[in-house]
Amino acid sequence: MSTITATAPPTASNSAGKLYRLGRIFGADGRTVVLPVDHGTMLGRVSGLEDPAALLETFLPLGPDGFLLGPGLAARTAPAFAHRNAPARLLTIDTYWRGEQSGEHVLMTSLAHAAALGVDAVKVLMPWDVPAEERAARAKLIGQVIIEAEPFGLPVMVEPIVLASPRPANATQIEADGARMAAELGADIIKVMTPDDPSLLSDWSRELGLPIVILGGPAGCTTDDLLETVQEAINAGARGITIGRKVWQRPVDEATELLVKLAQIVHPDR
Amino acid sequence: MSTITATAPPTASNSAGKLYRLGRIFGADGRTVVLPVDHGTMLGRVSGLEDPAALLETFLPLGPDGFLLGPGLAARTAPAFAHRNAPARLLTIDTYWRGEQSGEHVLMTSLAHAAALGVDAVKVLMPWDVPAEERAARAKLIGQVIIEAEPFGLPVMVEPIVLASPRPANATQIEADGARMAAELGADIIKVMTPDDPSLLSDWSRELGLPIVILGGPAGCTTDDLLETVQEAINAGARGITIGRKVWQRPVDEATELLVKLAQIVHPDR
Amino acid sequence: MSTITATAPPTASNSAGKLYRLGRIFGADGRTVVLPVDHGTMLGRVSGLEDPAALLETFLPLGPDGFLLGPGLAARTAPAFAHRNAPARLLTIDTYWRGEQSGEHVLMTSLAHAAALGVDAVKVLMPWDVPAEERAARAKLIGQVIIEAEPFGLPVMVEPIVLASPRPANATQIEADGARMAAELGADIIKVMTPDDPSLLSDWSRELGLPIVILGGPAGCTTDDLLETVQEAINAGARGITIGRKVWQRPVDEATELLVKLAQIVHPDR
Amino acid sequence: MSTITATAPPTASNSAGKLYRLGRIFGADGRTVVLPVDHGTMLGRVSGLEDPAALLETFLPLGPDGFLLGPGLAARTAPAFAHRNAPARLLTIDTYWRGEQSGEHVLMTSLAHAAALGVDAVKVLMPWDVPAEERAARAKLIGQVIIEAEPFGLPVMVEPIVLASPRPANATQIEADGARMAAELGADIIKVMTPDDPSLLSDWSRELGLPIVILGGPAGCTTDDLLETVQEAINAGARGITIGRKVWQRPVDEATELLVKLAQIVHPDR
Amino acid sequence: MSTITATAPPTASNSAGKLYRLGRIFGADGRTVVLPVDHGTMLGRVSGLEDPAALLETFLPLGPDGFLLGPGLAARTAPAFAHRNAPARLLTIDTYWRGEQSGEHVLMTSLAHAAALGVDAVKVLMPWDVPAEERAARAKLIGQVIIEAEPFGLPVMVEPIVLASPRPANATQIEADGARMAAELGADIIKVMTPDDPSLLSDWSRELGLPIVILGGPAGCTTDDLLETVQEAINAGARGITIGRKVWQRPVDEATELLVKLAQIVHPDR
Repeated sequence: MSTITATAPPTASNSAGKLYRLGRIFGADGRTVVLPVDHGTMLGRVSGLEDPAALLETFLPLGPDGFLLGPGLAARTAPAFAHRNAPARLLTIDTYWRGEQSGEHVLMTSLAHAAALGVDAVKVLMPWDVPAEERAARAKLIGQVIIEAEPFGLPVMVEPIVLASPRPANATQIEADGARMAAELGADIIKVMTPDDPSLLSDWSRELGLPIVILGGPAGCTTDDLLETVQEAINAGARGITIGRKVWQRPVDEATELLVKLAQIVHPDR
Repeated sequence: MSTITATAPPTASNSAGKLYRLGRIFGADGRTVVLPVDHGTMLGRVSGLEDPAALLETFLPLGPDGFLLGPGLAARTAPAFAHRNAPARLLTIDTYWRGEQSGEHVLMTSLAHAAALGVDAVKVLMPWDVPAEERAARAKLIGQVIIEAEPFGLPVMVEPIVLASPRPANATQIEADGARMAAELGADIIKVMTPDDPSLLSDWSRELGLPIVILGGPAGCTTDDLLETVQEAINAGARGITIGRKVWQRPVDEATELLVKLAQIVHPDR
Repeated sequence: MSTITATAPPTASNSAGKLYRLGRIFGADGRTVVLPVDHGTMLGRVSGLEDPAALLETFLPLGPDGFLLGPGLAARTAPAFAHRNAPARLLTIDTYWRGEQSGEHVLMTSLAHAAALGVDAVKVLMPWDVPAEERAARAKLIGQVIIEAEPFGLPVMVEPIVLASPRPANATQIEADGARMAAELGADIIKVMTPDDPSLLSDWSRELGLPIVILGGPAGCTTDDLLETVQEAINAGARGITIGRKVWQRPVDEATELLVKLAQIVHPDR
Repeated sequence: MSTITATAPPTASNSAGKLYRLGRIFGADGRTVVLPVDHGTMLGRVSGLEDPAALLETFLPLGPDGFLLGPGLAARTAPAFAHRNAPARLLTIDTYWRGEQSGEHVLMTSLAHAAALGVDAVKVLMPWDVPAEERAARAKLIGQVIIEAEPFGLPVMVEPIVLASPRPANATQIEADGARMAAELGADIIKVMTPDDPSLLSDWSRELGLPIVILGGPAGCTTDDLLETVQEAINAGARGITIGRKVWQRPVDEATELLVKLAQIVHPDR
Repeated sequence: MSTITATAPPTASNSAGKLYRLGRIFGADGRTVVLPVDHGTMLGRVSGLEDPAALLETFLPLGPDGFLLGPGLAARTAPAFAHRNAPARLLTIDTYWRGEQSGEHVLMTSLAHAAALGVDAVKVLMPWDVPAEERAARAKLIGQVIIEAEPFGLPVMVEPIVLASPRPANATQIEADGARMAAELGADIIKVMTPDDPSLLSDWSRELGLPIVILGGPAGCTTDDLLETVQEAINAGARGITIGRKVWQRPVDEATELLVKLAQIVHPDR
């Protein structure tokens, strides 16, 4: 009996919409290659991403599963996605700025605007190596985003992250705590750094009941190291990657080759 | 210079969303083959469409550009569309009932629910062979739909139609008047019956500045007649078809073959 | 691997709530015995139901899966349901009055009040042997109920029905059309009269993708006839019964025995 | 005369709903065993609760009266509660973070989402060993929760607590003050630590006119000590327990045995 | 075929309104000369602009493309613009005050009032050499302005600026980062200081996909220097100028002559 003619579990329109959108992000193998080009929303005119629309156009033909981008770029590049085989779009809706004493986390746009743009998910940061009071503020904001996204059927990707550099010894523990908090708040996708022991990804996936995608972070490792890290993460249960700077902060030819190899690791059967 | 890096006309997020969604409905050639399976919203358990989810599943592999369907079916069949190569979905949001003295036109669902479902457009009927008072009521409802759809970036397909059977001598004139009214209200796509003189489609397209797709209507003509009519309409400037009963009120094999031929007429270069 | 630790499909809080509530109505076998005692909302002080709270108390120990009741009775009898093994409650929220020329269909209470009461579903009538204009009004009202119920996670039971007596020859066809319309509007449960050919229930269940429960209607058949009808309906795929007058318009002992037998037919493995 | 046919005090739908939900939490003996698994909303990936869904599944068959859990876990585990004999669910809707200078107390989700999920109560913390300004802020937030919960018929459990460690000499006095404040704000259930003199529970219960359940706190006592403490609390009038870490931060077999014994103390006649 | 009768890209009313208004600001050559007279909103009774209405009246006959002015002046001088060939008006809606420790950025008026005035755009400052926490606050405010301006079809001009004096070595880099952030937030026009290397304007224009106009800043350079700077900026791709003090903080005759020369540089073919 086919899946769609069988009596399905009861659904609401927003839940059906969420299912539809998540299916556009994750391929038939349940995995995804997302190329983030949203760095201007925090890093400004970052090296290698000076012209995000041009970069997007360069990498579109490689067929990543999705792009992560900010509101302005999403509106400007809508024509490039205005066909049925286009990658998914995940919208970064927040910006976070860390001062000496404290950090401020705000939304750049509204969930209603995200829905109007027709993106497939929204994404928010969750800095978690922050003072207790800020954790409360982060949890409140992310909880509100999740509540407001729900009637629009928009999935929410949350990125629990340790921002301190160098990373403290307990960074993985902090990010594990943040991931749990994100799951408790109702996140749909977790974006996180691969822990030193990648097998933790397997534990976290089971425990959280959510797809986990791994981030890249600043450039600076060899392509071989990156490929190995990603392979380990995928082996350990990661459902995909959102790696930007480590890809496009290289010469275009090298970046292209690297993205193709990463896609092969994530989607070996494609 | 590439399209997306060139300085684009200024845009708003809802306008970008409309452009994105229309690009999902109309192919690279600017044309579309939409298979309507929304008849249950007015005709009930109509012959040939008793099991709309099964029918949808039968025709999905043929790759039509889109399906036209009602809210319940859209929620139920979301999994079948939850991947990036899936056809577009246009949501019928109204239902119209004609009594002896008057007709009533109401919405079945809200624009917010259409947005939550993630459909690419909404569609409303515009019965126009009606008394003056009803024309006002129709115009009011359709105008409201267009206003409410705008912040969601949802395109609106309007179908001006003469419901009387047999069609009166001035049916084409009435539908031309209705199409004009729909354009004045702000419609994005016109769905209309092919006029007796198909070259009028060319005039209407130019005059309205909108894509026109032609409807099928009740079954009852030969496949050759249908193919000829569609070819003439496309030659005259129609941007596509939304033909249901004339397709699926046939044996499946015949219907499949017919849909393939129709797609070849609409998309000769695909 | 257990169902709840496996990675589940993405969900929204209202969808999770709907799933939770439907699971309280339908047993582990996917079937339900609902005893309706809501007749006062249309029939007034109907024979056998003069004291609905007393009647409810009489039948509670028999352990039906649920009761169908109106807002006042639901508030008054809340203590009887204030324990974890209590039957589900489905709330009748509308009332319909048929005049000589037309009928009026209105809500008695709001979805917010239904949610406050803690009921597991709401139920609305869908008279469908009505003039065309009224069908529009019915569809509009039921569509609004479904839209408003959605954020509360409340399932909606819709009852397409031919009210004319005696039933016209095409009554089953009209109810099939109404059931389709209800499904298009987004109903979660269909309540309908068993068609003369019960095997249609199998077709309808598959086609609508929804659980169908059968109604009883006025008293007046033998218990054997009723049991046979219900057995046929269950055999044909009905997911349960909502039979009131045919049960409680009998002496209590007879009614009790009948309800037990009906439950055995619906839940043979319980 | 039966309880439900007697002339009851006039009721509103939300009051009836509150009564209904409280009856689902407290058994026929007016007592409850609630297993809290909501610690991820403040403690992150806490030891013993790394996989809260799995833990929940382990303890479900033991039949506690309820679980206390966060929004994400409640949505994810809805299927496990989607039957009539399932335990009640109490939803933790807030998160509190204590910094060096001050603490921040925020809501993770909305009352509307709690209602949509179909939970039987919401629960908020009330840190009361805090500076005066913070007491005002705590009172304001809890007062708002109680106000907003009311139209949904959702009972509110409030937990007045001294967070300082080690506990100051006047900890019980502070918690007594907090419990009184919670009662003044309109709380429905008080969750509190057993005072050194358990007989105070009897006084508090009478004075507040509210059911009091006792909390467990961090692991670290023997099972015998725990059982004795609980027995004393129940003897003194406690209406139940919400003990988590002291139960599940043990080997599963030991935890299971302990929970069974605790249930026997709370419900000796069950 | 003419552009306006050809099938246009789909549009929404607010997007059409934005296009209309931008077309009023930028001439047929895509460039604009805007004379700012809004300095009272931050500088008070600034020298040379003591009587802004009189100054405005003086320069109106010279036919600049637009004036930048505050809400009070816009209301007061409406008669001067109440004809079809009048310059556009861009409304400064915010005011920024820098203290020793931090700055405060607030709106002086609402977007609704801007729409009521009939202005062609609104303008906000974006101080970007500020502490991290303030960048978050600036981004939040500007993001809100852009969101609120959108349904009114009002273009938003954003001015990323380094306020420190003397300008730090990395001032251009900071303004480039701010311009990127403004573009990500959805700005329609960027107002910025000409970088030391004017050719960066060409890069920025391409990268941001937005028109860039250059600001003047305090008086104090020779007319020749100013003309040269503007010529270089225009050569490098600037779409116009918004230069006030460097123009009107001179004797009227000199200022008039200067404005004429600036207009000739911006619009050589006019």
